[in-house]
Amino acid sequence: MMRVRLVVEYDGSDFAGWQVQPGRRTVQGTLEAAIARLVKSERRIVVAGAGRTDAGVHAEGMVCAFDPPRVLPLTAFVHGLNALLPEDLAVRSAELAPPDFDPRRDARGKTYRYRLWNHPVRSPLRARRCWHVRGPLDLAAMREAAAHLRGTHDFSAFRAQGCEAKTTVRTLRAVEVRGSGPELEIEVEGTAFLRFMVRSIAGTLVDVGQGRIDPARIPEILASGDRAQAGRTAPAHGLTLVAVYYGDRTKAHG
Amino acid sequence: MMRVRLVVEYDGSDFAGWQVQPGRRTVQGTLEAAIARLVKSERRIVVAGAGRTDAGVHAEGMVCAFDPPRVLPLTAFVHGLNALLPEDLAVRSAELAPPDFDPRRDARGKTYRYRLWNHPVRSPLRARRCWHVRGPLDLAAMREAAAHLRGTHDFSAFRAQGCEAKTTVRTLRAVEVRGSGPELEIEVEGTAFLRFMVRSIAGTLVDVGQGRIDPARIPEILASGDRAQAGRTAPAHGLTLVAVYYGDRTKAHG
Repeated sequence: MMRVRLVVEYDGSDFAGWQVQPGRRTVQGTLEAAIARLVKSERRIVVAGAGRTDAGVHAEGMVCAFDPPRVLPLTAFVHGLNALLPEDLAVRSAELAPPDFDPRRDARGKTYRYRLWNHPVRSPLRARRCWHVRGPLDLAAMREAAAHLRGTHDFSAFRAQGCEAKTTVRTLRAVEVRGSGPELEIEVEGTAFLRFMVRSIAGTLVDVGQGRIDPARIPEILASGDRAQAGRTAPAHGLTLVAVYYGDRTKAHG
Repeated sequence: MMRVRLVVEYDGSDFAGWQVQPGRRTVQGTLEAAIARLVKSERRIVVAGAGRTDAGVHAEGMVCAFDPPRVLPLTAFVHGLNALLPEDLAVRSAELAPPDFDPRRDARGKTYRYRLWNHPVRSPLRARRCWHVRGPLDLAAMREAAAHLRGTHDFSAFRAQGCEAKTTVRTLRAVEVRGSGPELEIEVEGTAFLRFMVRSIAGTLVDVGQGRIDPARIPEILASGDRAQAGRTAPAHGLTLVAVYYGDRTKAHG
């Protein structure tokens, strides 16, 4: 039995997210269909992902794995699949993985990037990739708030309304606000994430930057565990899953 | 009589180029329709452009001008038009221009950027903006060829087959090949351009980078005036009109 680990890039604009849903165009479903065509299988080839990105979210380094029913050279899973996949989805690399490799359970961390276009006028060339925030932003206040989010906290106040995760304690190794002109980005690196957590962080940092939330209130918002205390949920199209990290058993995304 | 000068940005992917064509979605046509709606005019408001970008070509700094039939504050031509324009087209700025301002005739120069994604695997997040060139490129050879293109030359060998421009002598102030990893760009700045000239230059530089054209042959290709001697025409989607420059009468794009 062969287990293959793929690093996948996609423009999430026209996908209903990662996970297979009947009648919807999803990344997982599109990948599974292309793999089945490549290996000439009538059966569904299940592709396990490192996580589920929501509709509109992009990825440069999503990691996933599957067991092909027959052995092919690894390059076939790159070039062969890329010939079958649509323009907005591609395989960046393929390698052999241990037979029990689980992209989600084995992940040691992830990096996300949230992009902002902070200018009075919208930018058509950035429309699909950046959240357009018109007013001026106080970057110093955003960086102060980001510092409060770093470390290990209960992030209940920063998750989707319906999120049912049992434990809500997560560790963020980095929350950085980068840039100076109209092009800004928020980079978040952590061990694992709750649903909408990065978008809630990005929305809250923008609320801080616009003076709607005092950065000194972040510890109290975290302690409240109350979603209504934190800021907005930033729109999906600004978010990109940059990389998923693994331990010694499999290499990090490169 | 009021004359207004606009700087316009667009993602050219879904436009049939700048110029109005019956039954096609063009940048000029979309702008003219939005202006007519804004000023509540039944008549066509003709928008004169600094040049014609081809289908699929993007712009960050296209300049154009028109005479509104009634006086509005300049901010209305930015925010009012942006509310009426589609996501892939926006007005970046509006200012008053002299009554005889002609965006094409008065232009002193233009900068274009041509983007390449030089990697064995295509990149979905760059698919609409970069030409995907798979094989390795010899950047030193490309830079040697670029140096031969700088200056004043007859560019007949670097124009579209049907281009009917009377004079074909043009001056390029800069032809730069930038970058080192997979993201490369060719920046070209000149007084004026023939049709497909930048795309012919980009295609020829890639042919040089792939060893198909010796960089030392560029002077002889220029001297031949023969389109067949130069390299490929690079695809439209890698090209962006960055800025149009004017003399003292109107400010440069900022």
